[in-house]
Amino acid sequence: MKYSNFFLPTLKDAPSEAEIVSHKLMIRSGMIKQSSAGIYSWLPLGLMVLKNIEKIVREEQNKVGAIELLMPTIQSSDLWVKSGRYDDYGKEMLRITDRSGREMLYGPTNEELITDIFQSHVNSHKDLPKNLYHIQWKFRDEVRPRFGVMRGREFLMKDNYSFDINEEEAKKSYDKMFKAYIKTFIRMGLTPISLRAETGPIGGSLSHEFQILAKTGESTLFYDKKLETLNPENIDPNELQSYYAAVDDQHNENNCPIPKENLKISKGIEVGHIFYFGTKYSEKLKAYVQDKNGNNIPVHMGSYGIGVSRLVGAIIEAYHDDKGIKWPTSVAPFKVAIINLMPDDQDCATKSLEYYNYFMKNKTDVILDDRVCSIGKKLSDNELIGIPFQIIIGKRDLKEGLIEFRNRQKNINKKIKVDEVINFTNKNLEL
Amino acid sequence: MKYSNFFLPTLKDAPSEAEIVSHKLMIRSGMIKQSSAGIYSWLPLGLMVLKNIEKIVREEQNKVGAIELLMPTIQSSDLWVKSGRYDDYGKEMLRITDRSGREMLYGPTNEELITDIFQSHVNSHKDLPKNLYHIQWKFRDEVRPRFGVMRGREFLMKDNYSFDINEEEAKKSYDKMFKAYIKTFIRMGLTPISLRAETGPIGGSLSHEFQILAKTGESTLFYDKKLETLNPENIDPNELQSYYAAVDDQHNENNCPIPKENLKISKGIEVGHIFYFGTKYSEKLKAYVQDKNGNNIPVHMGSYGIGVSRLVGAIIEAYHDDKGIKWPTSVAPFKVAIINLMPDDQDCATKSLEYYNYFMKNKTDVILDDRVCSIGKKLSDNELIGIPFQIIIGKRDLKEGLIEFRNRQKNINKKIKVDEVINFTNKNLEL
Repeated sequence: MKYSNFFLPTLKDAPSEAEIVSHKLMIRSGMIKQSSAGIYSWLPLGLMVLKNIEKIVREEQNKVGAIELLMPTIQSSDLWVKSGRYDDYGKEMLRITDRSGREMLYGPTNEELITDIFQSHVNSHKDLPKNLYHIQWKFRDEVRPRFGVMRGREFLMKDNYSFDINEEEAKKSYDKMFKAYIKTFIRMGLTPISLRAETGPIGGSLSHEFQILAKTGESTLFYDKKLETLNPENIDPNELQSYYAAVDDQHNENNCPIPKENLKISKGIEVGHIFYFGTKYSEKLKAYVQDKNGNNIPVHMGSYGIGVSRLVGAIIEAYHDDKGIKWPTSVAPFKVAIINLMPDDQDCATKSLEYYNYFMKNKTDVILDDRVCSIGKKLSDNELIGIPFQIIIGKRDLKEGLIEFRNRQKNINKKIKVDEVINFTNKNLEL
Repeated sequence: MKYSNFFLPTLKDAPSEAEIVSHKLMIRSGMIKQSSAGIYSWLPLGLMVLKNIEKIVREEQNKVGAIELLMPTIQSSDLWVKSGRYDDYGKEMLRITDRSGREMLYGPTNEELITDIFQSHVNSHKDLPKNLYHIQWKFRDEVRPRFGVMRGREFLMKDNYSFDINEEEAKKSYDKMFKAYIKTFIRMGLTPISLRAETGPIGGSLSHEFQILAKTGESTLFYDKKLETLNPENIDPNELQSYYAAVDDQHNENNCPIPKENLKISKGIEVGHIFYFGTKYSEKLKAYVQDKNGNNIPVHMGSYGIGVSRLVGAIIEAYHDDKGIKWPTSVAPFKVAIINLMPDDQDCATKSLEYYNYFMKNKTDVILDDRVCSIGKKLSDNELIGIPFQIIIGKRDLKEGLIEFRNRQKNINKKIKVDEVINFTNKNLEL
């Protein structure tokens, strides 16, 4: 993509209502624009990151056999009345009356609808286990939406629902998802910390939340340092679930089950939550299957959420400095930025285009900054946007046969020979 | 994908409220499930087709330099009041009051919001032309939703908006989109017929709609036969726009501008609509740019819609027989189905798995029907679902070293030698 053809409106200052760093940086880097309180348009750069995150989430779900479908955003109130949650949900649920006077709502979650889909089509234990998910926009009418996409009203969530014949099998499904979640977050360059959690309005007896470490996070976490050094190829959910982790109001210094030297403290942000809630919804919504003995029994269910749009903000909270964002390569909107400091200079333009064409041909996500603007603005915009690998082409350097290579994550600048740029960049991309 | 791990609930009969063939077939083949009037869940098979269509639409948009972003589903009424359409839109607009009493709505289209995004960030003629699009769910509260996804309330649409300095440039943008639309529909295996159209509530002076030919379509089209034989590599929008085409209530036999022998009559379905409406929204919403002479002038705009979810139904209307769907390869949920008639037989199971593993390894979208059910049900389900190439493995055939290859589009069955199955299938896939 050439910057001149793109739509990437950077801002020097964030609006005053942006309180946290990810919100400020997302607005300044032209990723989002607020359209109403807690509701955002995703500008092209923001959408690219959102899609990269969505893709990783989807791939890890598909790998463990979860099946994707797509439920609508607008639901009828009927099933919610049956489950008993229509009143429980309170004002956070966006309630709508359609032209015929029917009570509708914008789905804040999908236990009811998926249970209804399941029960219409599955009636034998032979079709179990099943794990169905979708990645769909949800709405929660927060009383005070803030923190940008971290606590928006319209937000993108991946939610799964597992169906099993009994509690034992359901816990296997739970552990499978637990493992998939850890892998998902690690692939995004994050450090996930899993914590035993309350089940809240979803209900049930077993629940974990997943936080990721971020210096500027919203919660304070106390956890076993072993949780920081996981091998994604070898994750044992039961072992992981046995490690100590707690948020500050649960943690008691005098009663901590692990030795002080193993305890770590850090800020974190919640990005996922999983639940096992047995037959709570299957009984109310009649999701019964015939077991081996011919008896009709309610299925055991779990639900599993990842805040896809929230993750965009969370990753920025984890990876930024005072100049801007430092994208992990796996979710970066572009992997390589070619920054032509002198677009009017023939040599600079030719060399920039040469690199650009190479990466385009090799299907590396690349952006060429060909804007006519001051060198200062160009460099600061690129630090703000935070593409992992930046090839900076200047007139003086080029005369000496050099270009400047910037590793944004590590904050390292290095002059390298013009002929070595491609190989050097490719090596960095492979790491 | 193995059928036994998938979620593909076929039905023998369609519900009585399904009036048209695509609606019936989508329900019977487990593609969708109605959740409320005019609102559907997309079950896994349906979602796969929807995504394939979305992908083609996206690719053709990106090819002509349109930039993707994503506007939210819920909008504030503010901009609609400014544009004057808040009252105009009537009851078809789903109006919502949030918990703070603010008037919101579920976007039925996005001229207002995109114009606002544009005007906040662009203020010079140097940044033109721009063409921004998104693929997002819309809601229109139809008084009588019916025909399944062909006239749903919640539906997926791709909508673009072009911004140009003057009418001449705007018409270039219009023609570029016109051409991209023709290519998009041809890639889906469809025959697009472009017709001069009314501009309606969108406004403006120039508009075309795109219908696709389908025996069971909703409109009757009269058109120049040259429109049926387009070369996608060489499309001239101005030439195409000069060909005769009209829907039945516009067509007058005594006043038809082309000779009778060139006139064709067919049924069609509207799948796209494009508009040039000049400065209608830019004036009201203050989307001005500075021109070369330093004067602030309103930008000239166009908008361009493709009914992505509607296309799923439209393609089925164009490609089906009395046994089921006949997917064009480019949008088919799977390209190849391996149908094991005797899953309990060791030889059939081994051979099926051998083919299945081959196609999986080669990243061909393949489904293995490994269900334990009657041969009759298995064959009729697969005709219903309509995967283009079907490899049917039966015990008797296999003993003779044969399998049955079915081309669902052409309705041809052919016995071929076991060793030739892979090559034969690959050849069919390449066509």
